[in-house]
Amino acid sequence: MTQKEAIEYTINLAKKATDNEIRPNPFVGAVILDPEGQIMGEGFHQKIGGPHAEVFAIEQALQKTTDLSRATLYVSLEPCSHYGKTPPCADLIIQHKIKKVVIASLDPNPKVAGVEILKANGIEVVIINELKSKFLNARFFTNQIKKRPYFILKFASTIDGKIADYAKSSKWISNASSRQFAHDHLRSNVDAILTSYKTVIEDQSSLTIRNGHGEIKETNVIVIDKELVLLQEQFATLPIFYARTKSKIIFITSAAPAFQLPENITIVIGEFNEKGLVFSSVSSQLLELGMYKILTEAGSQLNSNLIDQCVADEMYWFIAPSILNDSSALSMLGINTTRALGNKVSLSLIEVKTLEEDVVLHYRFK
Amino acid sequence: MTQKEAIEYTINLAKKATDNEIRPNPFVGAVILDPEGQIMGEGFHQKIGGPHAEVFAIEQALQKTTDLSRATLYVSLEPCSHYGKTPPCADLIIQHKIKKVVIASLDPNPKVAGVEILKANGIEVVIINELKSKFLNARFFTNQIKKRPYFILKFASTIDGKIADYAKSSKWISNASSRQFAHDHLRSNVDAILTSYKTVIEDQSSLTIRNGHGEIKETNVIVIDKELVLLQEQFATLPIFYARTKSKIIFITSAAPAFQLPENITIVIGEFNEKGLVFSSVSSQLLELGMYKILTEAGSQLNSNLIDQCVADEMYWFIAPSILNDSSALSMLGINTTRALGNKVSLSLIEVKTLEEDVVLHYRFK
Repeated sequence: MTQKEAIEYTINLAKKATDNEIRPNPFVGAVILDPEGQIMGEGFHQKIGGPHAEVFAIEQALQKTTDLSRATLYVSLEPCSHYGKTPPCADLIIQHKIKKVVIASLDPNPKVAGVEILKANGIEVVIINELKSKFLNARFFTNQIKKRPYFILKFASTIDGKIADYAKSSKWISNASSRQFAHDHLRSNVDAILTSYKTVIEDQSSLTIRNGHGEIKETNVIVIDKELVLLQEQFATLPIFYARTKSKIIFITSAAPAFQLPENITIVIGEFNEKGLVFSSVSSQLLELGMYKILTEAGSQLNSNLIDQCVADEMYWFIAPSILNDSSALSMLGINTTRALGNKVSLSLIEVKTLEEDVVLHYRFK
Repeated sequence: MTQKEAIEYTINLAKKATDNEIRPNPFVGAVILDPEGQIMGEGFHQKIGGPHAEVFAIEQALQKTTDLSRATLYVSLEPCSHYGKTPPCADLIIQHKIKKVVIASLDPNPKVAGVEILKANGIEVVIINELKSKFLNARFFTNQIKKRPYFILKFASTIDGKIADYAKSSKWISNASSRQFAHDHLRSNVDAILTSYKTVIEDQSSLTIRNGHGEIKETNVIVIDKELVLLQEQFATLPIFYARTKSKIIFITSAAPAFQLPENITIVIGEFNEKGLVFSSVSSQLLELGMYKILTEAGSQLNSNLIDQCVADEMYWFIAPSILNDSSALSMLGINTTRALGNKVSLSLIEVKTLEEDVVLHYRFK
């Protein structure tokens, strides 16, 4: 196996875990090759709290030989150097006198100084700036570097970008397969769904995960509600408050309420301007609450603000084969601003999918 | 070959021609099978003025045997019964005593009464209502039944459906591959490009077909220009008027001009209402001018009107991986109306394509 192949191999190993199994940790894969390029051991980070990829790889290699002094360890992310839930991997590498370590990308966590420690102990270190590893860990890097949750935007619109008609009716624009996909692949793979109190009222949404066979799973919800409108008595019967015993509702508001709150409701105080929430004001609070990856299901204002404030990371766009052709219908995006074409927001196309006649476009914000 | 297979076969034969070779004629394929289901002869309509599919098939079969009295002819469209540029196919079928004729779809042309004549002559006739044949000849059927040109809409927009920024700048939203695709596959395959005088001025467009290697081909242009603004002296230097020696510019206006016009300019008088042109008022005039298939490259108003008046037939939508997120930018669609979700315009998805990171969605209006 060449170096390039070995790095690819570690990335593919890393992908054997799912984000739900490891979040907030990164995806990591590791492989140990002998001087002939043959695999001695391999592993990947399988679950939060469990051993790191390097540990699996080294243990497997040690079953074959106790001498790793001519071996090279390839790993998709810089080995850790601190005591977290497990002891530092850098120490393990040093202890077993591994000759060389090739790293696909550095760990942005300031506590991780694996490279320095390895070098200080005479181990040859090669760092590759592998984009695939960065994309794989986009959520982790965003959490670590930008100190904020990773935001995935979801839209379901007509061809002309309308998410509801002039009377705010939106049931249904996308087809049943698209809606099920959103439950199975989007709602199921995040820490919370972010929405606005207006959407909760208008859509009478329960914001749960339905598997299409009658089973309902809970998920956390974050509601932007500056004046805590939803906590008014008249809204106590909204579906969102029901069948929610294992999950939280986090209200983002401008001031703490004076009254006592039910146990599953959490208050986060944020700053608001004329356009809405200033997301940076709640970033660290949301991370502390374990909200590392958030899916938005909301109207134009919330999504437009996320994009305008450069905190949108990915988007899934379900395009139904229909046109409203009505300028009074609700658009999926658009705020009051004047943005020249030269300043457009750029995205990368990740995947194109069709679900019957709905088209699903999956983008990454650049 | 079964009947179903034979019909599929005729449709695939028909597709060997291109619309440019046969327009305004329909695509037609024909195959003759012996009682064992073996092919005796086949053919397709290859070019306008040339022999029909049935003629090719019968001639080929006659090379093998003069006795077609046990043979079945499968044809994707009802055989003609009138003298056009060629003699009637129905006569040929009767002359050669073909036993049975299976027709995928009837010809909407009232001059065509092939079925009646065949039956009157004792030939067994089976008519299948084959959707594939209807879709294949969508342009022909629209011309014949709706007595109007077939309209293909082209849009190039951002993800949020903007075709230009607030300052009307639109160069370039789609990428070079998308623009070349539009020249090679859209502009090259129609009788004219339809646009508005505003777009001609704003885009300074020449509306020619450029092959990407410096070669320029002409194509007809239809400009909606109620007041004949473009014929004012100040616009005489617009690119659209140059290098146009073999093609026409058709102006759709509300009244004939009093002044003399250059030879390559044609005037069509149409009715206008507060939203713009009433397309039905110019349908037959455009057909008479040989405008059977028209591509629109225009702004929101013209395209929205076509959709609102139910004269849009197909659309190609080039989606660039960018967002303007600006409600003052120009939208690709939208007129002043209130259309409930239940009355949405429905389309069928024909094809999804990616050109680098642009996505191209091809739809048929239902």
